[in-house]
Amino acid sequence: MVSKYLEALITEFSKIPGMGQKSASRAAFYILKLKDSDVKRFASALIDIKEKIRECSVCGGISDADICSICSDPSRDSSLICVVEDEKDILTIEKTRIFRGVYHVLKGVISPLDGIGPDDLRINELYDKCKTGKVREIILATNPTLEGDATSLFLTHKLKEMNIRVMRISRGLPVGGELDFADTATIARSFDERIEVF
Amino acid sequence: MVSKYLEALITEFSKIPGMGQKSASRAAFYILKLKDSDVKRFASALIDIKEKIRECSVCGGISDADICSICSDPSRDSSLICVVEDEKDILTIEKTRIFRGVYHVLKGVISPLDGIGPDDLRINELYDKCKTGKVREIILATNPTLEGDATSLFLTHKLKEMNIRVMRISRGLPVGGELDFADTATIARSFDERIEVF
Repeated sequence: MVSKYLEALITEFSKIPGMGQKSASRAAFYILKLKDSDVKRFASALIDIKEKIRECSVCGGISDADICSICSDPSRDSSLICVVEDEKDILTIEKTRIFRGVYHVLKGVISPLDGIGPDDLRINELYDKCKTGKVREIILATNPTLEGDATSLFLTHKLKEMNIRVMRISRGLPVGGELDFADTATIARSFDERIEVF
Repeated sequence: MVSKYLEALITEFSKIPGMGQKSASRAAFYILKLKDSDVKRFASALIDIKEKIRECSVCGGISDADICSICSDPSRDSSLICVVEDEKDILTIEKTRIFRGVYHVLKGVISPLDGIGPDDLRINELYDKCKTGKVREIILATNPTLEGDATSLFLTHKLKEMNIRVMRISRGLPVGGELDFADTATIARSFDERIEVF
């Protein structure tokens, strides 16, 4: 290798999920051609994210303050809680601008094989919110995987006992997708969850 | 957005060529979950690349010292020069371990539409090397684009006058590729540059 510094940066980039050796090297050369001030800004952005981002004490999502901008927004409906696996999921759902309630991050899914049980997740925190009597509806938005589904099922039983309306986001063909390209499980699901047209 | 710091880092990542909004956001979340020390190492790698990498005074490639590890390697044949457009190309060719000569980086290609003429490139530096009488062969390895080809052609005329053997890397079907997927220009080129088998 002609430069150990270049090599070091390529190594850092190549650890990013989804970045192969080629894109990592392309990224390093992009950095090499940036202005000094731009590289410094990139480096500070990296440091800032670790030093300044906190966990929202209400939803468990990421936040710049003790309570995140969603949980502290009076225009959001706090009686409607969307349960997600991961902080990242909040951003994904927010992009659609379809949901006006608040979130609750589980920080994972129940996965016996990985030794992750209900007590390792933010499940009791969810129950505590429900016990206040201020929660009207829970929308489960865990990933449509075995573990995600199992976690949702686990939550449903307990939440139903608390007399809370529990909903789950729908599964089926992706918008713009084609039957031909969908897997059999998705097609089967879209038949199971069919909706009456008129 | 729930965090301006997260947003700032996503913005930095999304400027990297080939990184879309989604992969930038995935990268930022990856950083968020790293240990403090790992993020600091990443940030220093960014800063280092700008502060410590220099241009090799011989080939124009990247280097940690005044003369790069290739140009200063006595086992490399300095009478055989491979001419490339970009510093990055050196790394790409080095990976093949096929070339044991040295390099010369042009730092671009002749492109009248972008206002780049021969004097804006490291062409005179190449002529100077050839004038020493120590250069036996030049291998042109510019990209197979209109500008790359034009630049190679431009160099060929002058180098021939200097009585230097000028070669060009071959074009044709990529190894492992299929005729069916190749574009017509590549197929036409592979017929033009056909090689006798026996």
